[in-house]
Amino acid sequence: MYPESILNLIESFKKLPGIGEKSAERLAFSIIDFDDDDVEMFSKSLLSVKNNIKNCTKCNHITENEICDLCADNTRDKKTLCVVEDSKSVIMFEKLSVYNGLYFVLDGLISPLDKIGPDDINLDKLLEKIKNENIGEVILAIKPTIEGETTSLYILKLLEEYNSTSQNENVAVSRIAHGIPLGVDMEYIDSLTLELALQDRKKIS
Amino acid sequence: MYPESILNLIESFKKLPGIGEKSAERLAFSIIDFDDDDVEMFSKSLLSVKNNIKNCTKCNHITENEICDLCADNTRDKKTLCVVEDSKSVIMFEKLSVYNGLYFVLDGLISPLDKIGPDDINLDKLLEKIKNENIGEVILAIKPTIEGETTSLYILKLLEEYNSTSQNENVAVSRIAHGIPLGVDMEYIDSLTLELALQDRKKIS
Repeated sequence: MYPESILNLIESFKKLPGIGEKSAERLAFSIIDFDDDDVEMFSKSLLSVKNNIKNCTKCNHITENEICDLCADNTRDKKTLCVVEDSKSVIMFEKLSVYNGLYFVLDGLISPLDKIGPDDINLDKLLEKIKNENIGEVILAIKPTIEGETTSLYILKLLEEYNSTSQNENVAVSRIAHGIPLGVDMEYIDSLTLELALQDRKKIS
Repeated sequence: MYPESILNLIESFKKLPGIGEKSAERLAFSIIDFDDDDVEMFSKSLLSVKNNIKNCTKCNHITENEICDLCADNTRDKKTLCVVEDSKSVIMFEKLSVYNGLYFVLDGLISPLDKIGPDDINLDKLLEKIKNENIGEVILAIKPTIEGETTSLYILKLLEEYNSTSQNENVAVSRIAHGIPLGVDMEYIDSLTLELALQDRKKIS
């Protein structure tokens, strides 16, 4: 019913997350009306992302070089390490410009159900980095889901072990605060968040 | 903040209809985890659609050949012509397998606001086709919007003129019925549809 080239393009669009049959058809059709240059650019960027994007050897963040721009930036605080789940988190932090230390991207969370164990998420590399670069503080910025909490706890234990055995100065460990986000009505807060917000309460006088 | 190749890919995704900044970022990131083969296929199909898809010389439907599969199909009724707005309509009709005649794709509707006049939507070619192929019935299957109704009326006038001047046999003109779709609660029907459904009422006894 469709010409073959359109069929193939629909199949490709359908492989994208959140794109179903109908959307894929709509997107494929829209390509017919694209400028030649735009289609060529689109086609090239796909290959370019696949061929050029690798993980920073120091922090696993996506980069086109050996070392990502953030690790290469000498104005950043090299003693503080923010541990995140994925590169998207790094980009979010950077967009909001609220942090000036280094990052470490786990590229996953411990999740027994998905058969992702501690060995699958770069934890050796994390410890290595902390040791070699003499990191002073590790901030765990991992989302508070079951997988996230499991991963945070696991890293906390690893670091406590590291502190008790290493010759280096002790590394401080913190996690980002959980609590009530700003501008939200209290009645819409779930009970777990409220519990965490109570536990994490801050003395103000 | 993003490596350049990802930035370019985000820009390309943003050119697609209905894809905003956030979605484009998500889609571009997902490409990193695609199989090499899938990305290559995606990249190739984009170019292939742009380079190979043209309009059928007989009916304007999209095709990779001179003449589309439907016009080339000798089992179809060559005396009946269904006039539609775009190739998407053809594909919808064909998916539902409810029609076995030929199609004619206008590739647009008359829309003074968008500066699309009668000369911009292949009407000369339509008349030519009706004359040369001695079409017996024209079915107008155009959506009942202001632009659609204007276009339908315009074509109706052209064909009445054609009937009064041509040596050929007269061509019958019909339009698809407007009315209440099946399985819908009456209370959700808009007044214009209801009015049309009343006008188009069918005697059953």
